[in-house]
Amino acid sequence: RYAEHLICRMEKRINKFRGWLPRKPMKFDDTLPDLEENESFTAPFSRSRIHHFIIHNKDTFFNNATRSRIVHHILQRVKYEEGKNKMGLNRLLSNNSYEAAFPLHEVIFQIFRKTLVPLMLCCCFRRYFGEKIGLYFAWLGWYTGMLFPAALVGLFVFLYGIFTLEHCQVSKEICQATDIIMCPICDQYCPYLRLSDSCIYAKVLSPQRGNKLYQQLLSTVFLEFWKRRRAVLAYDWDLIDWEEEEDEIRPQFEAKYSKKERMNPISGKPEPYQAFTDKYSRLIVSASGIFFMVSLHAFVKVLCCSSVCMSIQSLFLLSLRATTEQPRTESEWENSFTLKMFLFQFVNLNSSTFYIAFFLGRFTGRPGAYLRLINRWKLEECHPSGCLIDLCMQMGIIMVLKQTWNNFMELGYPLIQNWWTRRKLRREHGPKAKASFPQWERDYNLQPMNAYGLFDEYLEMILQFGFTTIFVAAFPLAPLLALLNNIIEIRLDAYKFVTQWRRPLPSQAKDIGIWYGILEGIGILSVITNAFVIAVTSDFIPRLVYAYKYGCMMGYVNASLSVFRVSDFEKRSQPKTTGSELFGDAVKYCRYRDYREPPDSAEPYSYTLQFWHVLAARLAFIIVFEHMVFAIKTLIAYLIPDLPKDLRDRMRREKYLIQEMMYEAELER
Amino acid sequence: RYAEHLICRMEKRINKFRGWLPRKPMKFDDTLPDLEENESFTAPFSRSRIHHFIIHNKDTFFNNATRSRIVHHILQRVKYEEGKNKMGLNRLLSNNSYEAAFPLHEVIFQIFRKTLVPLMLCCCFRRYFGEKIGLYFAWLGWYTGMLFPAALVGLFVFLYGIFTLEHCQVSKEICQATDIIMCPICDQYCPYLRLSDSCIYAKVLSPQRGNKLYQQLLSTVFLEFWKRRRAVLAYDWDLIDWEEEEDEIRPQFEAKYSKKERMNPISGKPEPYQAFTDKYSRLIVSASGIFFMVSLHAFVKVLCCSSVCMSIQSLFLLSLRATTEQPRTESEWENSFTLKMFLFQFVNLNSSTFYIAFFLGRFTGRPGAYLRLINRWKLEECHPSGCLIDLCMQMGIIMVLKQTWNNFMELGYPLIQNWWTRRKLRREHGPKAKASFPQWERDYNLQPMNAYGLFDEYLEMILQFGFTTIFVAAFPLAPLLALLNNIIEIRLDAYKFVTQWRRPLPSQAKDIGIWYGILEGIGILSVITNAFVIAVTSDFIPRLVYAYKYGCMMGYVNASLSVFRVSDFEKRSQPKTTGSELFGDAVKYCRYRDYREPPDSAEPYSYTLQFWHVLAARLAFIIVFEHMVFAIKTLIAYLIPDLPKDLRDRMRREKYLIQEMMYEAELER
Repeated sequence: RYAEHLICRMEKRINKFRGWLPRKPMKFDDTLPDLEENESFTAPFSRSRIHHFIIHNKDTFFNNATRSRIVHHILQRVKYEEGKNKMGLNRLLSNNSYEAAFPLHEVIFQIFRKTLVPLMLCCCFRRYFGEKIGLYFAWLGWYTGMLFPAALVGLFVFLYGIFTLEHCQVSKEICQATDIIMCPICDQYCPYLRLSDSCIYAKVLSPQRGNKLYQQLLSTVFLEFWKRRRAVLAYDWDLIDWEEEEDEIRPQFEAKYSKKERMNPISGKPEPYQAFTDKYSRLIVSASGIFFMVSLHAFVKVLCCSSVCMSIQSLFLLSLRATTEQPRTESEWENSFTLKMFLFQFVNLNSSTFYIAFFLGRFTGRPGAYLRLINRWKLEECHPSGCLIDLCMQMGIIMVLKQTWNNFMELGYPLIQNWWTRRKLRREHGPKAKASFPQWERDYNLQPMNAYGLFDEYLEMILQFGFTTIFVAAFPLAPLLALLNNIIEIRLDAYKFVTQWRRPLPSQAKDIGIWYGILEGIGILSVITNAFVIAVTSDFIPRLVYAYKYGCMMGYVNASLSVFRVSDFEKRSQPKTTGSELFGDAVKYCRYRDYREPPDSAEPYSYTLQFWHVLAARLAFIIVFEHMVFAIKTLIAYLIPDLPKDLRDRMRREKYLIQEMMYEAELER
Repeated sequence: RYAEHLICRMEKRINKFRGWLPRKPMKFDDTLPDLEENESFTAPFSRSRIHHFIIHNKDTFFNNATRSRIVHHILQRVKYEEGKNKMGLNRLLSNNSYEAAFPLHEVIFQIFRKTLVPLMLCCCFRRYFGEKIGLYFAWLGWYTGMLFPAALVGLFVFLYGIFTLEHCQVSKEICQATDIIMCPICDQYCPYLRLSDSCIYAKVLSPQRGNKLYQQLLSTVFLEFWKRRRAVLAYDWDLIDWEEEEDEIRPQFEAKYSKKERMNPISGKPEPYQAFTDKYSRLIVSASGIFFMVSLHAFVKVLCCSSVCMSIQSLFLLSLRATTEQPRTESEWENSFTLKMFLFQFVNLNSSTFYIAFFLGRFTGRPGAYLRLINRWKLEECHPSGCLIDLCMQMGIIMVLKQTWNNFMELGYPLIQNWWTRRKLRREHGPKAKASFPQWERDYNLQPMNAYGLFDEYLEMILQFGFTTIFVAAFPLAPLLALLNNIIEIRLDAYKFVTQWRRPLPSQAKDIGIWYGILEGIGILSVITNAFVIAVTSDFIPRLVYAYKYGCMMGYVNASLSVFRVSDFEKRSQPKTTGSELFGDAVKYCRYRDYREPPDSAEPYSYTLQFWHVLAARLAFIIVFEHMVFAIKTLIAYLIPDLPKDLRDRMRREKYLIQEMMYEAELER
């Protein structure tokens, strides 16, 4: 068990380092030269200028995360044997001399272990886990904070709808319409229904209005303010000047392309080289493969049951991992993987919602002339009270169930695994062994944080963001549910990081990377989908057209339903029941949601003028809404500067002081 | 005449400087330390490290522009008398001790004086005039280059239309329609017309199609590639790290707000301070004033004759200068002025075109029920063969006339002024005096470059860019005309800068400033307007709908005209003529361009179903077109990286080398 040795050594190293750390000639930004004011400025640390820095306490001068990074850096470069290339921890890990190498959890953080962490710990987390994880928590906290107003407005809209329920003309009419008989929505086996049966759904739906624009703009405000917040954090954490180091080449890449070598234009050393044509042919194959899989997946998901979906999904994930692309460096690979994975998960989560919002019930034809797939299967129809109710229900179910399940999995899985290892250990060593375990033994028994640990966290949150904003027009309670979830999520994540996972190696990061681009993309997509949901899915436009035409909503329900003569049914869709058991007589005419001429007009079942009015109004609404929202979005983005004013002033002040100092120094010579 | 003295002194200074310039302890980026490769790297110049730099020739080590800037910098700080504040050239200029101060033209450039400059002189210009003017020429050359493909495609489309003229069903039908009588287009005094009279216009219009999407995308490609080009220039010109210095406060601002003082957060010195409320109330007043003036101007321009326009225009310009805003620094003032001026000129140039494209003839009602302004004046109608012909003619006229006039003014005005001064001088000094004038005397007699010299140049070009892209769908020859104009313009500008203006003080600039944002705004606006032009102004959609419905274009002309019974005319618009002198009999029915029911239908003159079909198709086209174009634009912007690959590699290489050097330096200690 070499791991123990390693951990032991690390412990010792840390102790050793505490003594001589500040004398190390490496650059780290955490030092405070005292200029003429109370403000403190940071500069790269350098041994030769050690007298410039204020060092109160050698042990705490570098923070936890920085110290871990220093140790790791040294371990990477220490020779373990004579000979070329025989150095570095990674090499020992890869030839299995060591099983694992990780920084230890510290005792001070044991306190958090027992309790759920109730605070926004991003600063704390940054010192302990490094900037990358700190940034995640900062982002999550920020996002949760921005959900508050959205959730409040959503709740208000919902409650307003509930309280004004009785006054809504349309739902009143629907509830009173016991004499309107709706056509059956499937072939043969569906019964005739009274319109008043869908009374309760109509009531639920009536509050859908008003907050759409607001939510759109909120998502823009969120992104813009996050930009500012990020800038402040980057300044406070001394990351403004920090840039990614040159990445190392992925071992897979090196193995594959070791034959051809080429001079690296940056370092001037030879390195494996991927030919241009090879790279782009791979990229195209990969992209088209992804496109094919994603669309196949979306198609299958919409059409069939979940067991087939699961198998397709795993197939897809397999193909994703065995992708033909060969990115050169780890970070390129991570970006490419992130994008692909996000795309897949996004389609996975949203395809059914998209289908319900924009396709369900739109292309079914009309009673008596249903459109059929391969001339055989009738396409699914919406609920008699409109397609919006389907969308609403779907969203509610997904949000509640998926989030609960996610949270459970996220916490439960490592909990169970850790419980299992503890149980095994107890069997091996007897019940009392645990207390005497040293820290590294205890941490070794925790789950390792997988390579995409943070990726999973981001993915979950950003899928939620997308789901919440993209269909917010249909389901105003979405932000509230998301908020509740996040309040739990942020605590669960903190708990998990501190107690259920081995402490990951701290790493620096300036921003949330490719996720920001994805968030912006979602912001744009959400404007478009919401415009379409309001115009196409909801009854907003038909009602508006009716109100404009007749001045009131009286009789709207009747006008929005077309008449169908039962004897015109195709043979295969003729209902089994004549409806006489429900309505006394056999039903002669039934109604369906569309704008078509009645059966006894000159051109039976052709679209009425009203249909074209509504269609033109819908399209016009989309155009107006999109242009307006995008104009306001641009305006907001323009008005909110990327840097907060005081931060900009501080940065300019620093630059000014440095200039002055240099000027004086030149003059003194 | 102190000016002579000043210039004299400057000449001497320059000569003196040539000797000891490289020893000056000021930072200027033009020095070439020799690293291990043939590539050369630049670093801030510093006297103490003079031995690092390769200096072949002391006289040419700093380029022309840099030397001018050094001299100016010194003159700004030289004391001319004992006492505090008695220093600097600006103070002497402002109390009229000197009349003018400017760098001299150099003899080497005299060569260019006589000939039109035929080359892309941006590099040359940069050394001579400084980066700001160099960048303008670089941009102009780039823009002209990008106009080539656009012009080619436009020309091709135009020629294709000409050659396939005979095969166009619609124009054939129009030319043969001698029996279709169009209603008069104005009250009382207009005659009835045969449709075949507009035959020639129909022929001109037929080639309008196909190149719209292409032009849209070209403008995106242009902007994206300019970003790359700019980055390359900034690197080659050593401006990557250069940042604007802290601006000085405008004297106007200082005078106005001298009472309240506040600590400047950057330099820590007290300075005049504008209260927050004051600033924003001024901003709001100014913005609403601009908005009011611009819309008033657009309205007046559309409605009435040009003499009123001129007076309004000058009124506007007055109000623009006496604006209530009080920006703190020169650069803030410049940005604000640029934006306002651009907005105004843009509206000035485009309002009539916008009016013709989207409003002319759309809200006139129908014969027999014209909409009237204040129930009195009938609104103008389009040409009988469609509104596109009006737009086309308007654009052609504006482009040809305005550009010719602009070029004439731009060159002619300084030419005439200079000729006038020369004439005056000849009278004073006799005909032979001229040859013996020293350089400063000769340059003094040239026009000073006004403060917004470059502003005017940019404005002209960017207005042209806007005009060309925004209505390119209506007038495919626009890029060609713009190209021809620019080829002349770039030479004229160069000639003017070198021979007609005093040499301006060189100044540095990293990019084209606020203009880039304006260009991007135009790019977005152009997509929207082109979508609307194609959908609303042109006949593209109605033809498509007709072709989709009937499978061919036969009879389209007849179907697109509605029938009007002459006896239904209102009394005040009853034509004076009955048409019998043209058509033999008195006209009973005439036709007009609209989709309305014939007079003997159930609902006479109400819109037909066809109208709603076309309307829906138009709106749908706008939605599809915009989404498609914006998607492709985003994709292009994403695919074209902001930095060219080799530049990025070079920058990373530099950083890598510096890191290595520092690492080694640390190790050596």
